[in-house]
Amino acid sequence: MNAPDEAPYRPLLTNAARPSTFSVTAVDEAGVERTTPVAGEHPLTLFVDKQEVLTLMTLGAAPEALAIGYLRNQRLLASVDDIVSVQVDWDVNAVVVRTRSGLSDLEAKTQKRTRTTGCGQGTVFGDLMEDIDNVRLPAGATLTRATLYALLDRVRVHETIYKQAGAVHGCALATNAPAGAAGAAEILMFVEDVGRHNAVDAIAGRMWLDRVDGADKIFYTTGRLTSEMVIKAAQMGIPFLVSRSGLTQMGYEIAQKVGLTMIGRATHRHFLLFTGGQRFRGDE
Amino acid sequence: MNAPDEAPYRPLLTNAARPSTFSVTAVDEAGVERTTPVAGEHPLTLFVDKQEVLTLMTLGAAPEALAIGYLRNQRLLASVDDIVSVQVDWDVNAVVVRTRSGLSDLEAKTQKRTRTTGCGQGTVFGDLMEDIDNVRLPAGATLTRATLYALLDRVRVHETIYKQAGAVHGCALATNAPAGAAGAAEILMFVEDVGRHNAVDAIAGRMWLDRVDGADKIFYTTGRLTSEMVIKAAQMGIPFLVSRSGLTQMGYEIAQKVGLTMIGRATHRHFLLFTGGQRFRGDE
Repeated sequence: MNAPDEAPYRPLLTNAARPSTFSVTAVDEAGVERTTPVAGEHPLTLFVDKQEVLTLMTLGAAPEALAIGYLRNQRLLASVDDIVSVQVDWDVNAVVVRTRSGLSDLEAKTQKRTRTTGCGQGTVFGDLMEDIDNVRLPAGATLTRATLYALLDRVRVHETIYKQAGAVHGCALATNAPAGAAGAAEILMFVEDVGRHNAVDAIAGRMWLDRVDGADKIFYTTGRLTSEMVIKAAQMGIPFLVSRSGLTQMGYEIAQKVGLTMIGRATHRHFLLFTGGQRFRGDE
Repeated sequence: MNAPDEAPYRPLLTNAARPSTFSVTAVDEAGVERTTPVAGEHPLTLFVDKQEVLTLMTLGAAPEALAIGYLRNQRLLASVDDIVSVQVDWDVNAVVVRTRSGLSDLEAKTQKRTRTTGCGQGTVFGDLMEDIDNVRLPAGATLTRATLYALLDRVRVHETIYKQAGAVHGCALATNAPAGAAGAAEILMFVEDVGRHNAVDAIAGRMWLDRVDGADKIFYTTGRLTSEMVIKAAQMGIPFLVSRSGLTQMGYEIAQKVGLTMIGRATHRHFLLFTGGQRFRGDE
């Protein structure tokens, strides 16, 4: 699509982030009035080539990446090159995506619906599980204890909306590096949203836009490691999934099946290594 | 449907709760192997009159009530009397609902899709907001500080799966009583699930089954007070919504609009009274 010396193709995008927090007045247990920040939540209806797909409830911090990542993670588009433009208009709470050649199989894919734990509306669970069988995560990638700890330190600094207002989940994409090498645990992307599923979709969208590969990355989430979170990390080709929270049985089983290295309950210097331990270097 | 002295009608139900936790082995930061309980997560495909509606990912603690509450909260059925039977078969991960006269308007209602914060797949957001205008919450109901504190003490005891395994949200329906009267803050129902939206749907289903009215009740959730949570509490006719967590801007706006009394960040003896303060009796 581009000559070798050109910048990679990028769809035409608005840049329509909304303010993330708003102030409301509450009364505390002592009867004192307090002005307290709360997280934004806005309906955003996704239209693709003039067809309405669904309405997402979102913080609105990264609406263009969210729309792209939704289409990617729902397997409705195969490549960011298929997208002509993504235009958000908050006056009508709409994001309008134009594609080169339409969505693949929208009707079939949304006919069977799955409400996943974190909500994967429109996803055919069976299809996702079949796709998972085709995922190959890099066997040679390793994660050191030092990189894990550096990442945990850095994400603590980044959770700004959560710290202010609560009621959001954060996801981060960070660099990894071979043992001893510099440049690991740098946060490339950090997205918060009122729904976990939106935060991970927005990361997936930005990875497409910025042509970022998952193989040498670490995915961090404040949310729980449910089946949906594990499937999405695997689909993005990321071998390391780290969470502050716990996991579900199905999250565990899928991570084992696909050979993902999954670390939960990770805060400060504590963690539990659940699956894929062969990639973890606890001594380094 | 029944003579006055008969028990109220109840659909034919299975009673197919799944075990809530499973054990997995993990390695902690000290390299020590630990057997740790994790929450179950299972796909459960809902069929109504032989038509597939969607697949829910659930803990499986109350699958029959979940299916009924989903149909209630999505406004696909008008009354529990319309349900002939609800049969769960985990061998095929299915719940089969038979109705007297079919679902109202399934195609129209699921054609427009909303992925809410906690996931309200299949809900038409605009329709819900219109329905909300018809909700009338009891103006004369009051909640005393003593009842609120008693409720917070009792829900702490109930969160058993969360305490064991994390990764679940809990919802409770509790009694209320006029100031000074006995019998308040008794927990009538307590449901945990891997998704907040499932826990609240299961409560709604049990309220239908047990013919429980919301007007003299309190709804408690461990989860965030998003638009979806506020809409569902209001639809169930419950004037008091209490959460351990924070809220979103839209949750706040809808609670104000509908006149719901909403209390967030409620733990031990702390809370923030956000909306509907005229129903709260802080001195009693």
